[in-house]
Amino acid sequence: MAGKQVVIIGAGISGLKTASELYKKGFDSCVVIEARDRVGGRLHTVPGYKNNKYDVGASWHHDTLVNGLFLEELSMPKEQRASFVFDDDALVVIDQEKGRIDQDPDMTLEVLMEELLKYNQLQYFEDLDVKDVNFFETIVKYLYERRDLLTDDQIRYIPQLARYMESWHGIDWKSLSSKCLEIAHQGRNAFVLNYDTIVERIASSFPKGWLKLGTEVISVNTEGKKVVVSTSSGEVYESDYVVITIPQSVLAHSLSPTPRKGRIEFTPPLASNIQDAFQRTHYGALGKVIFEFDKCCWSKDRSRAITMAKSNPEIARKVRDAQELNQLVEKLNSDTKYNFKNGESWDFPLFFVNLAKHTDNPSLILLMADPLTTYIESLPEKEKVYDFFKPVVKEVLKAFDCFEPVVTDFEDKLDETSEGPVLKNVLTTKWTQDPYALGAYSACSPGDDPMDLILALAGSETSKVRFAGEHTIMDGAGCVYGAWNSGVREASFIAEKMGKVRS
Amino acid sequence: MAGKQVVIIGAGISGLKTASELYKKGFDSCVVIEARDRVGGRLHTVPGYKNNKYDVGASWHHDTLVNGLFLEELSMPKEQRASFVFDDDALVVIDQEKGRIDQDPDMTLEVLMEELLKYNQLQYFEDLDVKDVNFFETIVKYLYERRDLLTDDQIRYIPQLARYMESWHGIDWKSLSSKCLEIAHQGRNAFVLNYDTIVERIASSFPKGWLKLGTEVISVNTEGKKVVVSTSSGEVYESDYVVITIPQSVLAHSLSPTPRKGRIEFTPPLASNIQDAFQRTHYGALGKVIFEFDKCCWSKDRSRAITMAKSNPEIARKVRDAQELNQLVEKLNSDTKYNFKNGESWDFPLFFVNLAKHTDNPSLILLMADPLTTYIESLPEKEKVYDFFKPVVKEVLKAFDCFEPVVTDFEDKLDETSEGPVLKNVLTTKWTQDPYALGAYSACSPGDDPMDLILALAGSETSKVRFAGEHTIMDGAGCVYGAWNSGVREASFIAEKMGKVRS
Repeated sequence: MAGKQVVIIGAGISGLKTASELYKKGFDSCVVIEARDRVGGRLHTVPGYKNNKYDVGASWHHDTLVNGLFLEELSMPKEQRASFVFDDDALVVIDQEKGRIDQDPDMTLEVLMEELLKYNQLQYFEDLDVKDVNFFETIVKYLYERRDLLTDDQIRYIPQLARYMESWHGIDWKSLSSKCLEIAHQGRNAFVLNYDTIVERIASSFPKGWLKLGTEVISVNTEGKKVVVSTSSGEVYESDYVVITIPQSVLAHSLSPTPRKGRIEFTPPLASNIQDAFQRTHYGALGKVIFEFDKCCWSKDRSRAITMAKSNPEIARKVRDAQELNQLVEKLNSDTKYNFKNGESWDFPLFFVNLAKHTDNPSLILLMADPLTTYIESLPEKEKVYDFFKPVVKEVLKAFDCFEPVVTDFEDKLDETSEGPVLKNVLTTKWTQDPYALGAYSACSPGDDPMDLILALAGSETSKVRFAGEHTIMDGAGCVYGAWNSGVREASFIAEKMGKVRS
Repeated sequence: MAGKQVVIIGAGISGLKTASELYKKGFDSCVVIEARDRVGGRLHTVPGYKNNKYDVGASWHHDTLVNGLFLEELSMPKEQRASFVFDDDALVVIDQEKGRIDQDPDMTLEVLMEELLKYNQLQYFEDLDVKDVNFFETIVKYLYERRDLLTDDQIRYIPQLARYMESWHGIDWKSLSSKCLEIAHQGRNAFVLNYDTIVERIASSFPKGWLKLGTEVISVNTEGKKVVVSTSSGEVYESDYVVITIPQSVLAHSLSPTPRKGRIEFTPPLASNIQDAFQRTHYGALGKVIFEFDKCCWSKDRSRAITMAKSNPEIARKVRDAQELNQLVEKLNSDTKYNFKNGESWDFPLFFVNLAKHTDNPSLILLMADPLTTYIESLPEKEKVYDFFKPVVKEVLKAFDCFEPVVTDFEDKLDETSEGPVLKNVLTTKWTQDPYALGAYSACSPGDDPMDLILALAGSETSKVRFAGEHTIMDGAGCVYGAWNSGVREASFIAEKMGKVRS
């Protein structure tokens, strides 16, 4: 049995930051146990066609006015930090029939979108006891109540544009809590090129020997004075503290006795407030598909586009004729059921990053939400993935002034004389298939209260079992810098308890 | 001496609404004393060229998700309510040299503007003791701190676009409190056509006999059991309650013994908390100039434009070279002093409503803030006013695709065959000259706390001297519906105290 000051489970950004801070504070005997054979967790930079690199996990610095990781990066010499670009120019909005409808001075969808979000906020702000409903229902309620102030086209397209929120939360509008919908941006968003630089920087800020990759933790025992952590390869560590940074989705395995990959057996079991809180939290699955072309034959004017799910030409009539809200919700709910197995990419809002605007890389990065993510990530071949999204990709290129048909060349056999866009590669994330991730990050369904889990995991002043990660913190919840913050928090807590106050 | 249940001083929207509510609740003996010979106060609809009508005072329904007056209007048959249009499509932004620079996908000024407002909010949110500074200083601080993240053009134009906030507050950026800067929009803004319909509706919802126009109140005495109100024409009213709805600017006269038009002598004097609170509040002067043309020869695409004050080509260099914030603030402060007497309309941010988009009226309505308002409203002739704004009006028309020169014809002598725009009339507000208004509405300078005055005026549970108006309420502060709300509040208070609970 090896004696350690602190055992950190998981080498994602929160685990790495915890280790880094502990080392800075004078700790000299810690271990970071990571099940995968790499560090970074849901920060993962992968190679693509030619020399391209992509972050298939998180890829933005959010909230750059308050984002501590971003501000730390800024304080460093340029050559040591990850570069980034601000890609938050106005969103291009694409409808299957109408083409671009962003910034339309008569439809003013952007203005209505803002009003809808405020409407949603007010319904909970004004009365704390109002029942949480899914975002779809809130949208219908808004349309119903404001119908005399909306044109037919506005009623038709607001719901589709509003689904843009899915690409923030990673779950679809019918699974998404209205109460937790709001994203209160604290400054601009910057796209990172790439996160591997940051991960490597933090991972190399403490002794290499602390890292144990490819090692799965199977149990955490706190019955004795020390915490005992055992791994699948038979190692046993005894420590003063353990910091558990595995994703919320994997931690949830510990709630039931069923053996599952990544499951940690806690003895005694997780506290009852933690177990309870898991009933009021969910997990999202933001997925990405990267379309790599041979060259950029489209406009570099705009950074981002959304293709809206196809709209219902009857919706304005139905909203206007409705006598009663609940019936309308029901009716529109059945109108908007989808079956993605038929390959209908126009059933989903899809978010696109036009990477060519800010880099030399002529790629489009698509972001999608569950349940589409789970479906797409299960497709075995890139051809199948492209087939699914082909109609949408075509319209995105059109909206970016590229009208030539896409030629696919996944084997890289064509010469480079083709005029139109040649699709060389399609990369698809596999987070939902990855047993150590099982999706993207925490998400809220109606009735959830993420504060419960945060307080249960991070609120204890006495426990030697500590938790860090994007699901354990309010400031930066679901974000890289939130995870990073939580690492700072736990390292400070442990240092203080153990009487280390250096730095 | 006439006995009344309630004396209401001022027939603006808050006074009228107080009377209306009291009547609804069963009061049968009230009087509304108004110094002007018309009702409406700072709601005032005036005739223009041909059959045009304009609201020279307030002219929008703000916060239409929560605006009680708007929602009341909506609940009425269309023919009984004032019509309105949503004129909140994306703002056209005009620079003297560059022309239109709104929605520029590289400058992204709109995105930066949002970030600046969030930055401003955070500086006070994170620490309640942070010293309030003027908005100009906050902008410089933002530029200084974020300069590595901004391009030269962004540094150059953000300050000018940010001055857009002046047209909300009615005072210029150097007088404007950063702490009170934020306008938290609760839903869209609707332009009203026109407010006279609403004023007349409310003014006719209580007995005509209650209204005493052209009558100035000179004193309010609360030494006895009843309140005694005396007017300049020698009438004396005795009542249970008095509701004082005169503007904050005029109420301020009561703080000093100097006789002034509109001054009310209070015996005993106004409570000391009211007197104190006046030290922490200011008053703005939003002014309007209406340019009436013979026909619309410009684009009806967009509803609103802002012409930015001319920018400083050296500012980026100065911001980047700065070693210290305070010196930079000082330097830029002296760079941005203006002297409007030289007729430099490009020294000021000016807001334009393109009335032609939503109505048949080919007019442009300009909004300006103090100190420009005071200067312009003092000009005796429309020729002088037009001369001042001519360079700017020309660029606005250009931005709206009208390149022909403007011909003036204030005497209406030209025939109608001219191709270009013929300016038939210029209307200028006179609020700063009007002794019963002295400007527009309450405003905050650095260090002000509007809550103090609101609590002092509206917080008493016992006083028989009641206050209503836009300056006495938080929800809708500075807005028509806030004034209206305050009338509802005071009528309810008095009705409850006097045991009238009908309705």
